[in-house]
Amino acid sequence: MDMQVSFLDRLFDAGLLIETGVEGLYGRSGEFEGVIAAFERLIDRTGGEDGAEAIRFPPGMNRAFFEKSGYMKSFPQLAGTVHSFCGCELDHISLLKCMEEGGDWTEGQKATEIVLTPAACYPLYPTVAKRGALPAGGGLYDLQSWCFRHEPSNDPARQQLFRMREYVCMGTEAKVTEFRQLWMDRGVKMMQDVGLSVEIDIANDPFFGRAGKLLANNQRDQSLKFELLIPVTSDVKKTACMSFNYHQDAFGAKWGLALEDGSVAHTACVGFGLERIALALFAAHGLDTKDWPDNVRTVLWG
Amino acid sequence: MDMQVSFLDRLFDAGLLIETGVEGLYGRSGEFEGVIAAFERLIDRTGGEDGAEAIRFPPGMNRAFFEKSGYMKSFPQLAGTVHSFCGCELDHISLLKCMEEGGDWTEGQKATEIVLTPAACYPLYPTVAKRGALPAGGGLYDLQSWCFRHEPSNDPARQQLFRMREYVCMGTEAKVTEFRQLWMDRGVKMMQDVGLSVEIDIANDPFFGRAGKLLANNQRDQSLKFELLIPVTSDVKKTACMSFNYHQDAFGAKWGLALEDGSVAHTACVGFGLERIALALFAAHGLDTKDWPDNVRTVLWG
Repeated sequence: MDMQVSFLDRLFDAGLLIETGVEGLYGRSGEFEGVIAAFERLIDRTGGEDGAEAIRFPPGMNRAFFEKSGYMKSFPQLAGTVHSFCGCELDHISLLKCMEEGGDWTEGQKATEIVLTPAACYPLYPTVAKRGALPAGGGLYDLQSWCFRHEPSNDPARQQLFRMREYVCMGTEAKVTEFRQLWMDRGVKMMQDVGLSVEIDIANDPFFGRAGKLLANNQRDQSLKFELLIPVTSDVKKTACMSFNYHQDAFGAKWGLALEDGSVAHTACVGFGLERIALALFAAHGLDTKDWPDNVRTVLWG
Repeated sequence: MDMQVSFLDRLFDAGLLIETGVEGLYGRSGEFEGVIAAFERLIDRTGGEDGAEAIRFPPGMNRAFFEKSGYMKSFPQLAGTVHSFCGCELDHISLLKCMEEGGDWTEGQKATEIVLTPAACYPLYPTVAKRGALPAGGGLYDLQSWCFRHEPSNDPARQQLFRMREYVCMGTEAKVTEFRQLWMDRGVKMMQDVGLSVEIDIANDPFFGRAGKLLANNQRDQSLKFELLIPVTSDVKKTACMSFNYHQDAFGAKWGLALEDGSVAHTACVGFGLERIALALFAAHGLDTKDWPDNVRTVLWG
C-alpha cells in the first residue's frame, strides 16, 4: 500500500486533518494546531533573543512585486493569482446562467492586484527596500504566513496551502552565511530535542522545465540551498522540513537593498515548514499527542 | 481630512500596519498581532467551556462547495478565485514574452479547484454534512481563518485579506437562536471589558445589484442579522466588529444537515472581525499598547 495515502488516511481517521475534496487542501483539528503552536513557541525560545523584527504578512501579496520577483520565470506552475468578477448586473445574469448550465464561469474572472504568497519572505524584500538603507549591522526579520503552491498531491506533506515560519537576514556575505549556519545547527538540535531523526543535505528548488535543470544544477554547485530532512511518509524519500537559503546579492540587487555603506546587501533565509514538522512528529510519535514520549512533551508543552 | 485615511496613515507611521502598495492588503507588526492573540485568548476564556469542536481551515476552500453555496449569486463582486499556469514549456516562453512586453499575462491563467474562503464558516457546512446526522443536542464549532473579500478601500477596517473567528451552532431553532442571543450578550460584555463603547443593531449583507436590495430588505425584516458596532474611523459611521447570523434552515437544507431525528438542522453563527477589533482598540486607547488603561491591559494580558 502506498505509504503516503496510508498516512493521509490515518490522519483523516484520527481527525487530525479534515478532507475538503481537494488534494492538498485540508482542515486541521485543534490538536493538530496545538502541535504547530507548541513548535512555534520552541522557535520563539530558540530565536527570540536575536532581536528580529516580527512581521506577519497576509496570505496574498502585491502582484506587481510578485511579477518583479521573477517567480513566474522559475516556478510558473506553482503560483496562484487571485481573480474576481468585475462586471455589471447584466454580466452577473450571464454568469449565473453559465453556472446553471455547468459552463466554465471562471473564464470571465479578472485578475486582481493580489497573488497568493508563494513563500513567507517574498513580500519582505520590497517592504524593507522602501525604508531606505539598512541600519548598521543589517536587518533580521521574523515572518510567518500562509503560502500557496499549486501542486495537488495525496502526500500529506505536500499541501497547496500551508504555513511557513521564516527568519530572514540581510547584511554582509559573512553575516548572512553565519546566520544560515547558526540556524542549521539550531535546527538539528531542535529536531533532536523533539525526538526526530534528521539529516541535512544540499538541495535545489523545483525550477520549471528543461532550462530549470540548469538553474537547479547551478544552485547545487554553489551550495546555495540546504534542507533538513525528516522521515514522514517514507524512510527512503525523506521530507524537507526546513530549508536554509543563501541568495548571495541577487535579492539585494533586484530590490535595491543597500547596506549602511551603500553596498548591495546579501540575504539569506531559513524556513520552517510548520505542517511538515507537525506531520513528522505525528509520524514518529503516534497520532495521539498524549502518548508522545515525556521528554518530547516537556520540550513542546513544558 | 478624511478620518479613514488619517487613521490608516497613523497606523503606517506607527508601524502597526505595513503598506504593500495595494489598498486593503497590509502587513502587521508584532505588536498588532499581539493584540489579536490577546483578544483571541479572551474569546477562548469566554466560550471555552461550551465544548465547541475546534477546526482551522486554510485560507482557500473547495471551489465545488463554494459554487454550491450560492455565494456567486449574492456577492459575486467579493469572491476571489485562484488561478494557475497550466501550460507546457512553449506556453511558458509565450508567457514570459507577454510579461516582458507589459501585456496582460494573467489571461492565460486557468482556474484551480480552490477559491479563497469568503467567511470562516463556509467550508464547515459540507464538512459536517459528510459525517452524517448531527449527534443529539446538535453541533457547536470553533473556527478561525483568513478570509478574502475583493473590496479595495483606504478604510483600514475594510481589508481584502483579514481573519475571522467564528462559533457556529447547528440544532433546533430554539437552540441556535438561544446561542445567538448568548453571544450577543457575551460580545457586549467582552467589548465593555476592554473599554470599547458598543451598540448592537439590525443589519444586512452587501448583496449585489438591484435584486440584492430585496434580499437585504428581507434579511432585515426577519431580523436574521445583527452587528455589534464600534467607532473605529468615525463616531457616526461605526464599524461592524461582530456579526450574529441566524440562517433558519437554509444551510441545513442546502447541505443536508440533519438532526438526530432526521429533521433539517437550523444554523446560526457569530463572527469576530479580529483586525477590526484590534483597530477599534488602537483607535480608542492609542497606538501604543503600553499606554492602554490598566484595566484593559489586565483583561488582555493578565
